[in-house]
Formats: sequence, C-alpha cells, structure tokens
Amino acid sequence: MLSLLSLRARIEAGHLTPASALALVREAIAAREPEVGALVSLDPAPVVPGAGPLAGIAFGVKDVIDTADLPTQMGSSIYAGWRPKADAPAVARLRALGGVALAKTTTTAFAFMDPTETRNPNAPGRTPGGSSAGSAAAVAAGMLPLALGTQTGGSVIRPAAFCGAVGVKPSFRLLPTVGMKCFSWTLDTLGLFAASVADAAHALALLADRPEIERAGDRAPRIGLLVPNFCAEPEEEGLGALLRTARSVEAAGAVLHPLALPPLYAQAFGLHGTLQDFEGIRSLAWEYDHRRDALPPLLRAQLDAAGAIPAEAYDAARHVVRTARRDFRAVLGAAGVDVVLTLPAPGAAPQGYASTGDSRFNRLWTLLGVPCVTVPVPGDGPPLGVQVIAPFGEDARALAAAGFVERALAR
Amino acid sequence: MLSLLSLRARIEAGHLTPASALALVREAIAAREPEVGALVSLDPAPVVPGAGPLAGIAFGVKDVIDTADLPTQMGSSIYAGWRPKADAPAVARLRALGGVALAKTTTTAFAFMDPTETRNPNAPGRTPGGSSAGSAAAVAAGMLPLALGTQTGGSVIRPAAFCGAVGVKPSFRLLPTVGMKCFSWTLDTLGLFAASVADAAHALALLADRPEIERAGDRAPRIGLLVPNFCAEPEEEGLGALLRTARSVEAAGAVLHPLALPPLYAQAFGLHGTLQDFEGIRSLAWEYDHRRDALPPLLRAQLDAAGAIPAEAYDAARHVVRTARRDFRAVLGAAGVDVVLTLPAPGAAPQGYASTGDSRFNRLWTLLGVPCVTVPVPGDGPPLGVQVIAPFGEDARALAAAGFVERALAR
Repeated sequence: MLSLLSLRARIEAGHLTPASALALVREAIAAREPEVGALVSLDPAPVVPGAGPLAGIAFGVKDVIDTADLPTQMGSSIYAGWRPKADAPAVARLRALGGVALAKTTTTAFAFMDPTETRNPNAPGRTPGGSSAGSAAAVAAGMLPLALGTQTGGSVIRPAAFCGAVGVKPSFRLLPTVGMKCFSWTLDTLGLFAASVADAAHALALLADRPEIERAGDRAPRIGLLVPNFCAEPEEEGLGALLRTARSVEAAGAVLHPLALPPLYAQAFGLHGTLQDFEGIRSLAWEYDHRRDALPPLLRAQLDAAGAIPAEAYDAARHVVRTARRDFRAVLGAAGVDVVLTLPAPGAAPQGYASTGDSRFNRLWTLLGVPCVTVPVPGDGPPLGVQVIAPFGEDARALAAAGFVERALAR
Repeated sequence: MLSLLSLRARIEAGHLTPASALALVREAIAAREPEVGALVSLDPAPVVPGAGPLAGIAFGVKDVIDTADLPTQMGSSIYAGWRPKADAPAVARLRALGGVALAKTTTTAFAFMDPTETRNPNAPGRTPGGSSAGSAAAVAAGMLPLALGTQTGGSVIRPAAFCGAVGVKPSFRLLPTVGMKCFSWTLDTLGLFAASVADAAHALALLADRPEIERAGDRAPRIGLLVPNFCAEPEEEGLGALLRTARSVEAAGAVLHPLALPPLYAQAFGLHGTLQDFEGIRSLAWEYDHRRDALPPLLRAQLDAAGAIPAEAYDAARHVVRTARRDFRAVLGAAGVDVVLTLPAPGAAPQGYASTGDSRFNRLWTLLGVPCVTVPVPGDGPPLGVQVIAPFGEDARALAAAGFVERALAR
C-alpha cells in the first residue's frame, strides 16, 4: 500500500516532489485499476499544490460526496454526469491542506447494499464489501494513500477488513456530513481509509483540525474483548483472527478482559434498521417518488418496506438508542477497559459479487456514534481484521489503541 | 392572508378546484409582489394535482432549499441559475401530498444576515426581517398560504413577527434538513409560515406525518411569562405586546407564572455564535476558499473571524448546550408551567433596510432545539408578536398553546 506518512517524509526530505508523488499514484492506478475497478472518474490534470501538510497526497472521494471538479453520481444512473456546485467540506479541507482530489471512487447506489463492479484487490473472486467499495479497494490495492468513505451500517469498517486496509469511522459528526448524499441523518458518518493506523490518525487529525487525535500516548491499553452475543455468531476464520490478535496484544503488554454488553445494547442493535429506513425513505423521497424504477433492487425493496415504519416506532427507537449512547462510556468504565476489541465483520469477504457482506458487527457501533478502527490481521488467506472501538469523542484513544494492536500484530 | 385550511375547506366543499385555488394565489401575487419583492422565481406552469390533502395549496420555498423544477440560488451570485437534481425531502413531501411548489422565496445570502431586497408588506419602510424574508413576507402579504423557511439564529420566528404571520420552528430534526444549504448542522432547522396557528399546525402535522401535532386539546395552558434577562432588554412596544398578551390569556383562563431561567441558560445563550460560526466556516468552506470576494460583507466578515474559533471552545460550548438542552424540560416542570410565553424579537421591525433585525430573543431557543411559534398580536402600528415555546419534542403542546394565545388575542 501507499503510505501517506511515508510519501510525505520523502517529499519533506526532497526525494519526491508533490508532482512526482502524484506520478507514483498514477502509475499504481495504471497498473491495478483495470483489474480492480475502484474508480468512477479521475481528474486528468488536477492542480497539484506545492505546499501544505498534504501536498503531494492524492486522495479518493466516495462518489456520494460532492466534488466541484469531478462528477458525483451516487452509484446511480439517476445521477449520471451530475456535477455539484461545491466541494463537500471534507474535500475542501483536504484540498486546502494541499491534497489532490484525484479520483471519485465507486459506491453502491446511494451507499446502500446493491453491489458495485469493484473487485477485491487482495482476495480474488470475493467482494470488496460496501458501500465504500472503491475507496477501500483503491487504498488496499496501493492505488491511493487516502480515500474518503461513509458509513451508515458498516460501510467503512467492513470493506476495510475485507480488502485489508485500515478504516476509520470517527465519532458521529466529528467530520461534517455536509455535501454527502444523505441516507440517514442520525447515522451517516464520514470516514476514511489509509495504509496504516498512523497514516489514518494523521489524516483524521488534519481533516478534523484536531492535532491531539494523533498525539495519544503509547501506553498499553486496557482492552475489553467482545464476541458479540447480540446477533448471529462470527465465522470460524473471523473469530480465529480476533483470538490471535488477543494473544498478540496480551504478549505486547495489554490487559485483556472478556466483555459482555448489557441487554440494552442487544435491543439497540435490533433498532438500527428502524432508524436507518425511516430516515432513508424520507431522505430519498424525490428519487423514490420520481425515479423508483431506476433504483437497484435491494434499495428499492428496502424503501418499499420503509414507508410502513410508523413515527411511534421511530421515536421509541430513538429513545432506546439515546440511552444506549449515553451509557456506553460508563459500561466500559465499569468493566475497567479503555477500548473494545471485536470483529469488523463475521469473517473474510464472502465469495462472489452478489453481496457486499454482512454489517451485523458494525451496526451497533454506528448507532452509538462511537469511533471505530479496522486493523488488518496479517495471515495467509484472504484479508481479515479486527475492530477497535472507544467511547464517543475518544477518537485519539481509539487510534492509539489501534496503533498498539497493529504493532503487536507486526511483532 | 390566505388561509390554508379555508382554501382546503372551499375545495372540499366544491366551491374551488385545486386549479382555481392556484389562480387565486396567482392573482394575489400579481397584485402584491411588485411592491413586496418576496419571490425569486415562479413556476409558470406547475403540475396541479387534483387530489391529496394539500391539493390546491401553493407553497413557497426559501431559496436555500433544493427544488428540482426551479433554480436554487442561496441568495448569492455564486449560485446564480443553479439547478439541484432533486427536491429536498420537505418539498417532495408537500408535493406528494398534493401541494404545488409554486415559488422560490428570497433569502439572505446563505441564510446569514446581509439583507434581501424584500419589503415588509405590513410595515412600509421597515425590514421584513431575515433570513427567511421572502417566505415571511409572501405569507404575510396574502400571496401564499404556506411557505418553508429555515432558522439557525432567529430566521423564522423573527420575520414572522416583523411581517405579521404565524411562524413555526419545530423541534430540531422533526423535519429533515436534507437538501437545505447547511450553515450549522447542530442549529439549522426547517420551519414554516402560515396565516394562522391552525393552518401552521395542519401543515406541520402533514409534513411530519404526525397527525397528533394538530390534535392537542384546548385546555388552558400553564404559561411561564419570560422577559429574558440574559441579553439586552426588549423595546417598549415589544414588551407592551407581550404584557397585553399576558392579560388576554389570563382573561381567557390560562394561569400565568413569571419565569426566570437558571444562569446556565445565560451561559448557553452566549455560546450560540461559537457553534454557529465554527460550523459555518466549515459548511461554507468551498465558497469561502474559492469565491470569498462574492460573499456579501456581513457574511464575509463573520467567516473571516470564524476561522479563529478553536476546537476546544467549540467542544466546551457543545457540552454546555447539551446540558442546557437536557435540563430544559425539568426547568419548566419545576416552575409548574407547560410552555413559555416571551418575545419573538425586541420590538417591531426596525426602520429601513440596512439590517434584518436582532435575533437575541431567538438564539437560545434555536440552540435548545425546542419548538417555537410566533403568534401575531393585533394592533394599530407595525406588526408585533409573541413567541410560545415548549420542551423538545412537544410540538403539539407548543401549537396548542399558541392557538390558545391566538384565540385569547382575538376575543
């Protein structure tokens, strides 16, 4: 993979210019893109700023995020050729830092579950996951050092695990969702993909303008090991990667406690769809009312059903979720742990391209708005990963613990 | 003014068709628009649905809210002629109910404070207020029975009072802000203007798909009378209207208690700008980075200053506001009141067109996310009003109490 920090170090040392760093990226894209299909469009001649903390860093933008200089097509024929007026704030911010918005990356239609044409660069014959398929695949394939994605169910953390990249879903609204096509206004979260935890932490700290995000200490974290009991069990290889990681972090000096969540969290987990779909049918009202036939089958069926969710069910779900959000920090505190270590997906990417995989190990955390990080777990087969989770607002803690896990796995 | 419920009653009784109701609106626009200047664009030949609970109801849409069939220009030359792809969900919903999106209404640039060209239809020589100037003026002038607006500071409640219309700012996120140009994602609230409280309650109940919003009882509310002590005092005529209203509602059987808010609310009030501006410079990053010279002076100066707000100040403000939001219901409960009765603005609309007036009696309530209703107070001079406020989520209660106030004032 292309490391953002390594590219920046070579630029600062004078071994690369921002323009030659871009040329490296273009070479990688020329080599890998024909087989991966992660990109929707590519800026043929972007302005490459000569200065700034991200000068020379090309980044990808999931195609549900507005860009002024490239089309934004939402993974849907309804938006074929669509050109927004303005960059989304996250894109504007990366550009202001010197980054180059080089490519739009594939997305499932409106970031729902109908698969894209993108192939998993590190697991032939398997889905890259979704909905941020192109951003995950492009980074994992070494085509881009940084890419933006979004998560409403498990659309950053899961494809990162399937493709073998680091994925970060920050705390809810740490990054503005302005200029993103909305599916669910209480769940949609902007996230990112990078080659390492340090790369991701650096990018997030710059993007959020919060240097402390990458300044957390190296202290061994107290880790709650969670095998979720609120949904169907993980697959054997997924569980194996988690337990292998647990042994590695213990050997590196972390204290592990088995963690079980109170029943409230099983209840909240079951309500994710109520929130997502009640809001989704409203967010996509124009598309549903005027272009229903152009919606792909999974999304269309979901929206068909969503109209029947009563406001009372939505309000009741909001209430449960609010309580679960409020209490999560105390749940970890009572267990004496700083972060949760759990699965980012049931197992490796499923075979074939008919599905983007299952988000059941992601939805609760999106619902809670807590920071989550996918850390790849080295191995011989298709990519596997683990997920590190911290309380709301503790993005620095989540990234520091993820860095600890990454180092423990590399020893 | 044109009453939505009265138009609908005449349509249901067969005295009007939806098309002839539209013709009435067009006549009113032809008569008043040249002097008021509330409209940015007008659909010359809209589809007029023959059925639906809002069939025959023409509505206006503030020009920061996306429409597929009319330009959306944000009150700014930067967006001259801009055509979004889709209707905002609120527009799509009103259209699905049979309503006709007849006109876009003037807005200050990006819904900030630089005045529009719109004139106050009921107070010659005075501002209509802002930022939802056109929606307030169009309804108050009897040109439209319904119009959508937005409030981040005081942009619905204040112009409603200045122009003499009913304005409703519902609970935060009761209506989705999807498809609205974002200024502040924690403050921006979609609201509406109508000719009477009953009209507004009916429209909001339909728009939110929550019939209970207009089904609250007629019981005399327990009212907390609040003269804000957390900012500069009201003007004499504004205070006079409030006290006159207090006497009327007491005479109609309501119990009034003087209300004072704990110091936390003065503190929260002082933090509105921190939240609004920290988010505003991010939301408008593309416009600021690429088209700063095209921004109007008040907005440009505000954004120039906003870049200096540190993330720590924002986070600290969020914390105070979260506490203030959480406690507000209990504050009213402890005072033994159902709703607050207070001023919607310091006084009548200021003379001239150099300012949209002062939002100091609105900002706290926007910050708290609580439902607010402007009720006009009959009188001889320029329009005056009062504001009725209920706890978060109690939109039905706010509207029922506002209806009580409206009836008491009409006696």
